[in-house]
Amino acid sequence: MTTTAKAYAAPAAGEPLAPIEIERRDVGANDVRIDIEFAGICHSDIHTVNGDWGPQPFPVVPGHEIVGRVVEAGADVTKHKVGDRVGVGCMVNSCGECDNCKAGDEQYCRQGMIGTYAATDVDGTTTQGGYSTHVVVDADYVLSIPEGLDPAAATPLLCAGITTYSPLKHWNAGPGKRVAVVGLGGLGHLAVKIAAALGAEVTVLSQSLKKQEDGLRLGASHYYATSDPDTFSALANSFDLIINTVSAKIDVSAYLGLLDRNGAMVNVGAPGEPLDINVFSLLTNRRTYAGSMIGGIPETQEMLNFCAEHNIGSEIEIISADKVNEAYERVLASDVRYRFVIDASTLA
Amino acid sequence: MTTTAKAYAAPAAGEPLAPIEIERRDVGANDVRIDIEFAGICHSDIHTVNGDWGPQPFPVVPGHEIVGRVVEAGADVTKHKVGDRVGVGCMVNSCGECDNCKAGDEQYCRQGMIGTYAATDVDGTTTQGGYSTHVVVDADYVLSIPEGLDPAAATPLLCAGITTYSPLKHWNAGPGKRVAVVGLGGLGHLAVKIAAALGAEVTVLSQSLKKQEDGLRLGASHYYATSDPDTFSALANSFDLIINTVSAKIDVSAYLGLLDRNGAMVNVGAPGEPLDINVFSLLTNRRTYAGSMIGGIPETQEMLNFCAEHNIGSEIEIISADKVNEAYERVLASDVRYRFVIDASTLA
Repeated sequence: MTTTAKAYAAPAAGEPLAPIEIERRDVGANDVRIDIEFAGICHSDIHTVNGDWGPQPFPVVPGHEIVGRVVEAGADVTKHKVGDRVGVGCMVNSCGECDNCKAGDEQYCRQGMIGTYAATDVDGTTTQGGYSTHVVVDADYVLSIPEGLDPAAATPLLCAGITTYSPLKHWNAGPGKRVAVVGLGGLGHLAVKIAAALGAEVTVLSQSLKKQEDGLRLGASHYYATSDPDTFSALANSFDLIINTVSAKIDVSAYLGLLDRNGAMVNVGAPGEPLDINVFSLLTNRRTYAGSMIGGIPETQEMLNFCAEHNIGSEIEIISADKVNEAYERVLASDVRYRFVIDASTLA
Repeated sequence: MTTTAKAYAAPAAGEPLAPIEIERRDVGANDVRIDIEFAGICHSDIHTVNGDWGPQPFPVVPGHEIVGRVVEAGADVTKHKVGDRVGVGCMVNSCGECDNCKAGDEQYCRQGMIGTYAATDVDGTTTQGGYSTHVVVDADYVLSIPEGLDPAAATPLLCAGITTYSPLKHWNAGPGKRVAVVGLGGLGHLAVKIAAALGAEVTVLSQSLKKQEDGLRLGASHYYATSDPDTFSALANSFDLIINTVSAKIDVSAYLGLLDRNGAMVNVGAPGEPLDINVFSLLTNRRTYAGSMIGGIPETQEMLNFCAEHNIGSEIEIISADKVNEAYERVLASDVRYRFVIDASTLA
């Protein structure tokens, strides 16, 4: 028997979000139903409701940073039980059978992962996200939120946290490694915290010095303004890893010039338009330019455990659901330090 | 006491090469004098004499693929002795003191490596390359040509060989790895031979199927024409490593789409103009786009030993020095299979 969830949805591309009621499927043998406590607002949510990423079904309930409690578990579920605090990130299913899924990289599933919202689910319905009172998800794609993590501050870890943790781990951020984080926003502030906790020496590269105090408090050792051209000469050849959290068009070659021998710059987002790249900047120092997309389920759990151990949560501003459109405006104006989290109790 | 070498030089940018006499320095305590037997013609030579890479001193004697015999060794030289067959590649010196030099990556020397021609040497003179009867080089930058390598066929290994060997090794080409080589020219044909000898499954991606028979004979298992758009859909997500030997502007994002999870595409050359890149193609499958520039002295020696062990030489066409301008025309027309080598005895 399906259940009715209260939610906020965009009725059509570019329209403000408004209250809606949606159906959630009955809890299958492998599913859990989660009463949602908090849902984070990710920049991707805004791109999706604006239709920036191509045609898609409407109405759409965004939200792929979800924390709540299990209130019902299917007969075959052993991973989670009623009462557990759990999380859901950017995907709610994948084929589970391909080599990428079996390697724990479900985000690169050969059939395509099933996104938490605006995607076609295995039963043919359209997935709807976390700006709602509850959700039903296959238990294998549900994470455990460790004791000791504040549930609201943990919420953005499900997307922003794993999106930065995964490349930091893959490209070996740690003691002796010089890591730069480009952009100090929702993703960037978590990249700084996680990289510092991994033992790396962290530098923030931000447009201005406006958030310098924050950056240093969050764990960075150095802070530079990219609007100052001297930054690029002063820091030439001086990083092992650059995590670029900025999706706008940047001068890639200038940033590549900051990488030392064997250094890598990793984009965790992508601008809609192509970037120009001067390939000579890759030849020098045997540099690499890479991309990374969230992380798999096992690595997401590893990240949550790591964050609990190192007392890492997102810096957040909790809002009621009726403030979501205002929050979107403020995200677009970079006017949030550093992530909005919807208190889902305000939806009921 | 300096010695006079006969050589071929470009008198000015874009002018045909002509005979010249140049002075070689006296053999210092750490130097060897090499009587040159063979000098390879690299596409870079043509760029340099055309002035494509910016202002530089003229006349310039090109040639950074050099094989010959040691005829004199300085008092402190222990690495090579008179009578040894030796080689010189793209560099003749570097600071030797920085971390990159000490790591054996002298090509990324923090002071800048000293190129074999058209570079400023440690004594302030301009280096002159291998299209000449003899050369004096610091013995630490001189390679041993192992017994069993044909000296003429070994000559192109000093640039084209190490340029492809280094990234193949760095990105772990070997058994179970699917390697594509873009372009079957001087670099590409050696990339195919080396990758196959390393145990990888090799595919050639060439503009047409014109050289297919060669490609398969050299060690490739598959051969596709990139002028056929079906190639890009048929081969989507199917390589671990792509070595791009083409310096012309290509559709990078289309080639990136051929990489499987964690795959890397490595440019060993660079077009003069920037390339467009759609960053989404990097996010998918956690792909990387990298550059690589020749290789260090220890790795160049390792490559020569590997080639001797696996009986790998370049496919060459030996010419007399007076045919060099004609050879340049044919290189530009891709009309050589696969490398011109000047018989330096024709200079005397």
